[in-house]
Amino acid sequence: MNLDFGKLGGLVPAVIQDYATGRVLMLGFMNEEAFRKTVETGFATFYSRSRSKLWLKGETSGHRLVVKEISTDCDLDSVLLRVEPLGPGVCHEGYQSCFYRTLKNGEWIVSENRAFDPGQIYGSRK
Amino acid sequence: MNLDFGKLGGLVPAVIQDYATGRVLMLGFMNEEAFRKTVETGFATFYSRSRSKLWLKGETSGHRLVVKEISTDCDLDSVLLRVEPLGPGVCHEGYQSCFYRTLKNGEWIVSENRAFDPGQIYGSRK
Repeated sequence: MNLDFGKLGGLVPAVIQDYATGRVLMLGFMNEEAFRKTVETGFATFYSRSRSKLWLKGETSGHRLVVKEISTDCDLDSVLLRVEPLGPGVCHEGYQSCFYRTLKNGEWIVSENRAFDPGQIYGSRK
Repeated sequence: MNLDFGKLGGLVPAVIQDYATGRVLMLGFMNEEAFRKTVETGFATFYSRSRSKLWLKGETSGHRLVVKEISTDCDLDSVLLRVEPLGPGVCHEGYQSCFYRTLKNGEWIVSENRAFDPGQIYGSRK
């Protein structure tokens, strides 16, 4: 299950897709340890570039991502995880998907309503 | 339509998803120029890290990606393109999706048949 972590300084991009609906929920990064933890635990675990440490998705909110299937691409330098999300949304801004803005006439427009109140879930981390 | 290209040395990851089926087809990278060309032309254009130049997807194969919708995430550091793929597959290995291998018992297993013969499409570049 070797992946090529060398192209991106020890990381691979990880696309997170809802197993049931097909919606792309977020994109994170994994280092080798995060990937191994993801496989071993069955919960998506990332490497936080801003905090420089492993990050179990949902560790604060409880909104973990249950891994149903993991794929890799032709170059072994990115992964696709199809998941069952626990909770109403994956985005720390309160949306179902982090991709909640679409491009319209050169502007990013919020194209959906919030699924939860991030202040209630994350408290001061909002 | 500002994006944050600073976190990854001038690039953002671009997830490519089939507009009709929802399948994730590939992950590429865009620099600012590639993103602008994508928006202007309506065809997905990437920055090739191996060749260090812009890369119009389908320039060799004819299998261009017609952009139907572009989204960005909460941090403005990745994009999601929902596309209509022209041609049977996006992968230079001949598969519909670059994510043609799934993890089974610790091994990457090819989980689908080729959609086209890459030797016929790419010739010696195969």
